Amino acid sequence: MPKSGFDYQDDVLSCEKLKLTEIAERFSTPCYVYSAGAILANYRAYDDGLKAIPHEIHYSVKANASLAILSLLARAGAGFDIVSGGELFRVIGAGADPRKVVYSGVGKTEEEISYALKSGIGSFNCESESELCLLNEIAGRLGLKPVVAIRVNPDISAESHPYISTGLKDHKFGIAIDKAEQLYKNRGAFPRLNFEGISCHIGSQIFDTSVFFEALEKVAGLTERLRGAGLAIQHLDMGGGLGIAYAPSDNASSIAEFAGALSRALQGMDLRLMIEPGRSIVGPAGVLLTKVLYRKLAEKKEFLIVDAAMNDLIRPALYQSHHEIVPLERKERKTVLADVVGPICETGDFLARGRRMPAVEPGEILAIRTAGAYGFVLSSNYNARPRPAEVLIEDGHARLIRKREIYEDLVRGEAAV
Amino acid sequence: MPKSGFDYQDDVLSCEKLKLTEIAERFSTPCYVYSAGAILANYRAYDDGLKAIPHEIHYSVKANASLAILSLLARAGAGFDIVSGGELFRVIGAGADPRKVVYSGVGKTEEEISYALKSGIGSFNCESESELCLLNEIAGRLGLKPVVAIRVNPDISAESHPYISTGLKDHKFGIAIDKAEQLYKNRGAFPRLNFEGISCHIGSQIFDTSVFFEALEKVAGLTERLRGAGLAIQHLDMGGGLGIAYAPSDNASSIAEFAGALSRALQGMDLRLMIEPGRSIVGPAGVLLTKVLYRKLAEKKEFLIVDAAMNDLIRPALYQSHHEIVPLERKERKTVLADVVGPICETGDFLARGRRMPAVEPGEILAIRTAGAYGFVLSSNYNARPRPAEVLIEDGHARLIRKREIYEDLVRGEAAV
Repeated sequence: MPKSGFDYQDDVLSCEKLKLTEIAERFSTPCYVYSAGAILANYRAYDDGLKAIPHEIHYSVKANASLAILSLLARAGAGFDIVSGGELFRVIGAGADPRKVVYSGVGKTEEEISYALKSGIGSFNCESESELCLLNEIAGRLGLKPVVAIRVNPDISAESHPYISTGLKDHKFGIAIDKAEQLYKNRGAFPRLNFEGISCHIGSQIFDTSVFFEALEKVAGLTERLRGAGLAIQHLDMGGGLGIAYAPSDNASSIAEFAGALSRALQGMDLRLMIEPGRSIVGPAGVLLTKVLYRKLAEKKEFLIVDAAMNDLIRPALYQSHHEIVPLERKERKTVLADVVGPICETGDFLARGRRMPAVEPGEILAIRTAGAYGFVLSSNYNARPRPAEVLIEDGHARLIRKREIYEDLVRGEAAV
Repeated sequence: MPKSGFDYQDDVLSCEKLKLTEIAERFSTPCYVYSAGAILANYRAYDDGLKAIPHEIHYSVKANASLAILSLLARAGAGFDIVSGGELFRVIGAGADPRKVVYSGVGKTEEEISYALKSGIGSFNCESESELCLLNEIAGRLGLKPVVAIRVNPDISAESHPYISTGLKDHKFGIAIDKAEQLYKNRGAFPRLNFEGISCHIGSQIFDTSVFFEALEKVAGLTERLRGAGLAIQHLDMGGGLGIAYAPSDNASSIAEFAGALSRALQGMDLRLMIEPGRSIVGPAGVLLTKVLYRKLAEKKEFLIVDAAMNDLIRPALYQSHHEIVPLERKERKTVLADVVGPICETGDFLARGRRMPAVEPGEILAIRTAGAYGFVLSSNYNARPRPAEVLIEDGHARLIRKREIYEDLVRGEAAV
């Protein structure tokens, strides 16, 4: 299981000896807090686990795109997996080397492709024949010859949430392996593309890692056939997707074991392995701090109305996700059955439902655990709520890495009335 | 059915004689476009339908909080239903009279309550005993005596989507009628509150309007009992929630008929009726324009990859909502089975799935209909995508009411690396 960086010290949830009660007081709530130490430890667990083979780790920016976190990872040697021009802008802003960037995604626009080519990114994962045509055309116009991997769709079910499982042929992602093989072999039609890689990504939040190896087998077969046909395939991008434990019952894999197994599977294949972990690096390493506003007793349960809402963390509403929610102060408490809900005016605004949890009082601070991935990046201004602050804890110091929005931010860009 | 303001003219989808193809060219895509004429017509349908009784219409800001739209409605005489300090800031920014504002919501913070009191808003809909205590205390501190309605929870099922149905006792909203009755009668405990109203809101997107009248009956009974106990109940806030047709098979009510029926039901009760429509005013009056980027053929269907995504319009992913999607140009076309999906890297990023629709080509513009409510307000920057532009069409002129975000907007407030 990846590291979180948060634990109880003197019965107060803390990060690197800093009490989160003090962080909440200093930066107010709702507020995301991340542990730089845990993020780096999780990144290094991949890097160490793969050290026996040539490899590149591209952190998946979509999980958490904070400039400070990107910069932290860039300094540790990470590359980046991006899915939009906006993510490229962020990665460059964080001081990363564009040559260590791989660009994935089904809907790259002409403007985005030009921007990526001009920035000199490392490679493109292409998702359709039309995209290959467009990339070939723009590269020609710019006099460039980018490195390309076709994203193949291995038609493997990853048994994750249907919204984040991506490797079946009725998903929008990738190209069926036989079709991809034809495209590779027809590379003469794309004279401006340098077909050096194969990519594959079967989903996110995957617990049964055997599906990665099932996919790998299919992709290795394709590699051999393509090499037989004279293509110099040099890298394999196996995507990301390692699951993390949100609930105590979740049986998540260890990064070290997973990376070790990948490393053994690739040994002797003369391929550079690329992987794109996101959630497993930042997910456990973040919490969302929220204050209890009201405690409202209903017939069979109680409602804890807190100051964070679905606009801050939409995972429970969108993916029916479980997040552990704990009071920052550990003490003898009664257990209650509660819905933890935000102030937003819809029933979909919940952070936990029907949860057995310790009784807490208005004014107390709760930590919503494992909120480092797909948390802030999905936040909105729904109900005209300013987005929360983000804080990074690094070497025992807490630093505001994104200011809490203020009301004036809500109307930015709107016409004067 | 409320008005949309959009129809085909010379086989091109238009609004007040402006072709949306030209709007898309001028403002680019993705882009929300609203019809001021339809918004006003829908507002006036409520106002006219209720003319026989004393009434106030408070537009529900959460449906679409655009300053320009709020200003349009304020000039037409509307009041506003707000659910946060941010919405109050928007309403004041739009030039509305705070005295015509009612403040609803389960999680009002101390800061928000102070802000609302100091702004002199018209009334508070209170959702819990703790909130009454807090409001009473802050009002005392400020030397004010605000008008208050307790939001009662009538325990009525509105048969809407579970996320937006709010009138059951296991929802976080309101106070059970018997409990509310005790609180009203115990008004001496809240000397700084002026208990003049009763409020009730059973959900959103309701097709069977009989539930409104079922709720009204319960609330009318409470009114009589409270008046009998010496309380001068003067207004009834019946909330909003009238359903609109998203799919052709949806059987939505007419605003005029609904308002007429409400008006007849209230006649002779010596009560000022307040209502809080949102979706039925702006929902049909907005479209999201999007360009087809790629057409990707799969085994049994095709994927239309468009430049709008779940970050622009999350309703399909979050509520499994149906939105009609039509090409702007009407002509003889084949019919295909398609998933309309955005560029975001998850399978949950869809705008329509398994939809029989006219075949379209890359470069064409589609209109996602009935996107005026709960569209832009729920937008995010997921996948580092700048939020779309918003355009208002008024008196035959198109006006940019919110600029498309640019990459620099994405990192605003973040620490320099």
